[in-house]
Amino acid sequence: MTKKINIAIIGASGYTGAELVRLLLTHPHANIALLTGDTQAGKKMGEVYPHLAQYDLPALISLEQADFSKIDLVFCCLPHATTQKVIAGLPQHVRIVDLSADFRLADVAVYEKWYGHPHQAVQLQKEAVYGLTELAREAVKEARLVANPGCYPTSAQLPLIPLLQDGIIENSNIIIDSKSGVTGAGRSARQANLYCEITDGMSAYGVASHRHAPEIEQGLSNASGKAVMVSFTPHLIPMSRGILSTMYVSLVKGKTAVDARQSLSKAYDHEAFVHILAEGIWPATHQVKGTNNCLIALKEDRVAGRLILVSVIDNLVKGASGQAVQNMNVMFRLPENTGLQFSAIFP
Amino acid sequence: MTKKINIAIIGASGYTGAELVRLLLTHPHANIALLTGDTQAGKKMGEVYPHLAQYDLPALISLEQADFSKIDLVFCCLPHATTQKVIAGLPQHVRIVDLSADFRLADVAVYEKWYGHPHQAVQLQKEAVYGLTELAREAVKEARLVANPGCYPTSAQLPLIPLLQDGIIENSNIIIDSKSGVTGAGRSARQANLYCEITDGMSAYGVASHRHAPEIEQGLSNASGKAVMVSFTPHLIPMSRGILSTMYVSLVKGKTAVDARQSLSKAYDHEAFVHILAEGIWPATHQVKGTNNCLIALKEDRVAGRLILVSVIDNLVKGASGQAVQNMNVMFRLPENTGLQFSAIFP
Amino acid sequence: MTKKINIAIIGASGYTGAELVRLLLTHPHANIALLTGDTQAGKKMGEVYPHLAQYDLPALISLEQADFSKIDLVFCCLPHATTQKVIAGLPQHVRIVDLSADFRLADVAVYEKWYGHPHQAVQLQKEAVYGLTELAREAVKEARLVANPGCYPTSAQLPLIPLLQDGIIENSNIIIDSKSGVTGAGRSARQANLYCEITDGMSAYGVASHRHAPEIEQGLSNASGKAVMVSFTPHLIPMSRGILSTMYVSLVKGKTAVDARQSLSKAYDHEAFVHILAEGIWPATHQVKGTNNCLIALKEDRVAGRLILVSVIDNLVKGASGQAVQNMNVMFRLPENTGLQFSAIFP
Amino acid sequence: MTKKINIAIIGASGYTGAELVRLLLTHPHANIALLTGDTQAGKKMGEVYPHLAQYDLPALISLEQADFSKIDLVFCCLPHATTQKVIAGLPQHVRIVDLSADFRLADVAVYEKWYGHPHQAVQLQKEAVYGLTELAREAVKEARLVANPGCYPTSAQLPLIPLLQDGIIENSNIIIDSKSGVTGAGRSARQANLYCEITDGMSAYGVASHRHAPEIEQGLSNASGKAVMVSFTPHLIPMSRGILSTMYVSLVKGKTAVDARQSLSKAYDHEAFVHILAEGIWPATHQVKGTNNCLIALKEDRVAGRLILVSVIDNLVKGASGQAVQNMNVMFRLPENTGLQFSAIFP
Repeated sequence: MTKKINIAIIGASGYTGAELVRLLLTHPHANIALLTGDTQAGKKMGEVYPHLAQYDLPALISLEQADFSKIDLVFCCLPHATTQKVIAGLPQHVRIVDLSADFRLADVAVYEKWYGHPHQAVQLQKEAVYGLTELAREAVKEARLVANPGCYPTSAQLPLIPLLQDGIIENSNIIIDSKSGVTGAGRSARQANLYCEITDGMSAYGVASHRHAPEIEQGLSNASGKAVMVSFTPHLIPMSRGILSTMYVSLVKGKTAVDARQSLSKAYDHEAFVHILAEGIWPATHQVKGTNNCLIALKEDRVAGRLILVSVIDNLVKGASGQAVQNMNVMFRLPENTGLQFSAIFP
Repeated sequence: MTKKINIAIIGASGYTGAELVRLLLTHPHANIALLTGDTQAGKKMGEVYPHLAQYDLPALISLEQADFSKIDLVFCCLPHATTQKVIAGLPQHVRIVDLSADFRLADVAVYEKWYGHPHQAVQLQKEAVYGLTELAREAVKEARLVANPGCYPTSAQLPLIPLLQDGIIENSNIIIDSKSGVTGAGRSARQANLYCEITDGMSAYGVASHRHAPEIEQGLSNASGKAVMVSFTPHLIPMSRGILSTMYVSLVKGKTAVDARQSLSKAYDHEAFVHILAEGIWPATHQVKGTNNCLIALKEDRVAGRLILVSVIDNLVKGASGQAVQNMNVMFRLPENTGLQFSAIFP
Repeated sequence: MTKKINIAIIGASGYTGAELVRLLLTHPHANIALLTGDTQAGKKMGEVYPHLAQYDLPALISLEQADFSKIDLVFCCLPHATTQKVIAGLPQHVRIVDLSADFRLADVAVYEKWYGHPHQAVQLQKEAVYGLTELAREAVKEARLVANPGCYPTSAQLPLIPLLQDGIIENSNIIIDSKSGVTGAGRSARQANLYCEITDGMSAYGVASHRHAPEIEQGLSNASGKAVMVSFTPHLIPMSRGILSTMYVSLVKGKTAVDARQSLSKAYDHEAFVHILAEGIWPATHQVKGTNNCLIALKEDRVAGRLILVSVIDNLVKGASGQAVQNMNVMFRLPENTGLQFSAIFP
Repeated sequence: MTKKINIAIIGASGYTGAELVRLLLTHPHANIALLTGDTQAGKKMGEVYPHLAQYDLPALISLEQADFSKIDLVFCCLPHATTQKVIAGLPQHVRIVDLSADFRLADVAVYEKWYGHPHQAVQLQKEAVYGLTELAREAVKEARLVANPGCYPTSAQLPLIPLLQDGIIENSNIIIDSKSGVTGAGRSARQANLYCEITDGMSAYGVASHRHAPEIEQGLSNASGKAVMVSFTPHLIPMSRGILSTMYVSLVKGKTAVDARQSLSKAYDHEAFVHILAEGIWPATHQVKGTNNCLIALKEDRVAGRLILVSVIDNLVKGASGQAVQNMNVMFRLPENTGLQFSAIFP
């Protein structure tokens, strides 16, 4: 492949936008052709993100100024609820990876219930492909519109879906206790996310009410063949990047941790980005920082019939922009790890 | 009470020792009379902890140099396994609050199983009182030897014991997902606890194998009247102080979150240090930093019949040195909050 | 003294307001009678600062609702430029400690130059006392209006003023390189102060243009008897509290580091809060966290005739609210360390 | 160039060794052929650094087991004082980039004075090239042994050397106030570098006695033609990576900040890694995190005739392993930025 993919990033002034730029700058087949950011329109990217000042990048323009005629692929990084209309208005020739939550829920009634307003692009929703790449590769290949998964749902579904598909774990009594770095909250100036409010402390939030719950449940229900409801609690941790999810599940009678390990090995041993750790090794978010990797560990609990799993991802990479690039690679028939082959940055 | 309590701190060079000094320096009835620290013997406390350099404190001496003849109370902050023999060798007139794990497990067989060697002071174990103050006040009052609870067990037992005692929650299927600051790991020079290994990342550890599990189970079993086994996973968070425990439990058929809230209110509304938060308010570790408080919040899960609780403490205060001072106050018939009435330090 | 001081805090919703509340809650002669906060009016203090929720405090009201008739002392924590008019409007019987920059510069022309608008309470300025307590105790005692010093100026003037007064150091070629924690930036929701923008990195700001420069120069000029101009660079450090200032000065010919040490000892050996460290000991901000202390160390440079000094304070305590309480104690003839005698919180 | 460079890393278990691995893994002409680490011999690199577990790397062996016969280049990451003998014992065909301080000081008497023992490879010292790449490129090209500069010296010399060479600033009265992240202290288990000892606080260290002072002075003296002595104070900041140096210098009479800017532009405008920021823009360490860049800003002080400069680097990259790879590229006639072209990772 010699021709480069002409890429537009809509909503490039947020953290996921900046992370896409970081990844695409060294991607051999990407050409960052267009950056929009309504509140920052007119600024250079290096003014909004000084760490990018040394690069030759298009200036930020407003969405309405954008000309998509030569664009091959749009990454859409807008907040939810604004995205549906914007994507509905894009020309038909562009393919889209949407990083918002707007097209992730196949059932528009579920969307309406959790987001508080009717879905505004019901027809588009029907063709959207939920892009958890490892588990949806063939559909992503052909998709015009990929709904890039949420960060928490990526960390939970990668370990749990194969176990449900293979009948290793029960579809009830699933507890997902997730811990996230603060980049997940975005770059908006909110008092709650000030340095002094976050550092050296932690809290739970969205207990039994976080919008990623139905997204997780959609994936697990599809895998299990029955409606699954999960206990899901996210927590905010004083770190920039990283999600660690600790999952407590029930083994199907007769199944063991060995079966669970085999199921996950079967699903992921040939994968570039998902790695099952050897018994007794537990992952840290440090180990995936800056990478598109997901590390998974598991162990039988002391409580009979219970299994504990831990997964880690970098929420900005595998949980957002990295998986978006991975999906782009699939859509454009590139090797899936193109531009994503760097090691974690530690310490 | 005019006479001051003459206090010895054995193992004063660790973080819990330094925290005891901080708390006792402004305690109106405490006289810090003796500090031991074998590896630091001969040094001033201000050399070991420069933040204490402005205070007139006894120099650190070795344990064998210590004269306990005028000591009323010993706080013992030694590592587990060394403590049993040391305490057995103390003169009979001193009362003891032991901050190690050595006397917390009433059943010496359980101790031997988890700690890998026989208990070395079996007779003393029989008289030891497990000092979760709010729930053991009367016994603490008369005790010669108080086993000060562990940090994780304090955070888990305070919310769960009343609910089990009152028959609000089932004694099975209890999940305790705990997150701790790094002071819990102590001041020993270990590579794993270096700044660069910890900051900006997190991990689980001791999955299904942490020694605080049997301590929690002992308390919950006593409360429930049946043997309880819990799923317990601790995590290491990049913060100095604080524990947040997220607990997932099953309501007894017919019981609701309202019943749970009433049970906890009944147990703690008259307490100085344990506070049940109003519905919809969730605690952060910031809110207890430097204090002896435990904050508890709860909510019925979306999954029918499930309840989620969150508790926070400062692991060095209510989880160690503060509860030790609280126990001293009870033992010496002082108002329980004497010397413990400061607000959290935030930000 | 049995009657308590009735205290109003104007602008109580910022970090310095919250810190005043923390300090005054355990002050034996303080009664927090009135809290104003225009943007938060109607809320309980515990809603704005959950770590204060357990205390019985007056609700926040707007300034115009405030009744000062029974107030003895006002702490004013408003942003600069709004303060002059507010204080001018207070009834004559109240005494005031102002934590803003509005009354710190005796020369209203200097104020106008650095703040870009004419001083709005010129008469009041004439009676304002600059409250660097150790060096202005007698004037503070009688003052109606105390201008509480800035955080950087406190850290720089305490070490440098005695050396200039005693003719130990030259009044030229003074370099002050200061490093501050993020609480200095206040609680306003600004993108630049988000957790992810601050953590794990640092920067200089206000290079050769920070408004604390003229405040420092005022104090040093008074001490030296000649106009002093300093090189002053502040830096933002990923920590909540603390200022460390590194100062590079020239010794007057014939003077040595020994003379400098004697000068500082003479000035501060009898002080409760300012401590000169022994040779070879250098201070860390940890050692003053939560306290009203200032630690100072010094050493002759390898470069002949040059002296290096390092000072540390907690910017929210000795650099703001603690020094304000210290000034209150002086104004009301209380022992100067009343309510300020706790040790640093570490770790 | 098709043949890969066979590389050995001696002392690969430290942070600079791990960072070399990170950089070389994606370097198109590097083959990591040999890793030594005496204390970790026998372990896989992924056991010592779990973030590298997904890569196929040679296991760590002891130095005495190492066979250098097929090695083209050695990166030596041993602690100082052990390095001289080790390098003296390497076969003549290997070229060496030494990251220790052992060959940085051309004058072995200066080495002996600051390191407390005689230089142990005096002949080798004579051929060693001090590898501040931008300013020593031609010599590096031909060198067998490159002494890779220290982190602080890199941050100070890059801005100051051109200004001295061009006669813009005086060679006296140079103050360098440097702030470093904690990776600079290495991975040894020392109490002082524990998370809880470092986080949320800062301190100065090595005041007027740090071993990087003579290294800086060597470079500045060579540039100036006269012996230069500097005031240099390093500080430890709670961040993993990054050095920020604030420099206060005197302009030669008649010279201005404009001249200084021109001098630096002339020196660096054609460089890939050194960037002079536009007036009014000040750098943050965030902007170079993970990169080999050095950003420099400058401004005339309010004090007449004084200039303030700020530089930032990533201490593990441009301050150590990145500059080492840059030197390797020069030595092997590769484009200098080969393998070093990634953007900073932020946030």
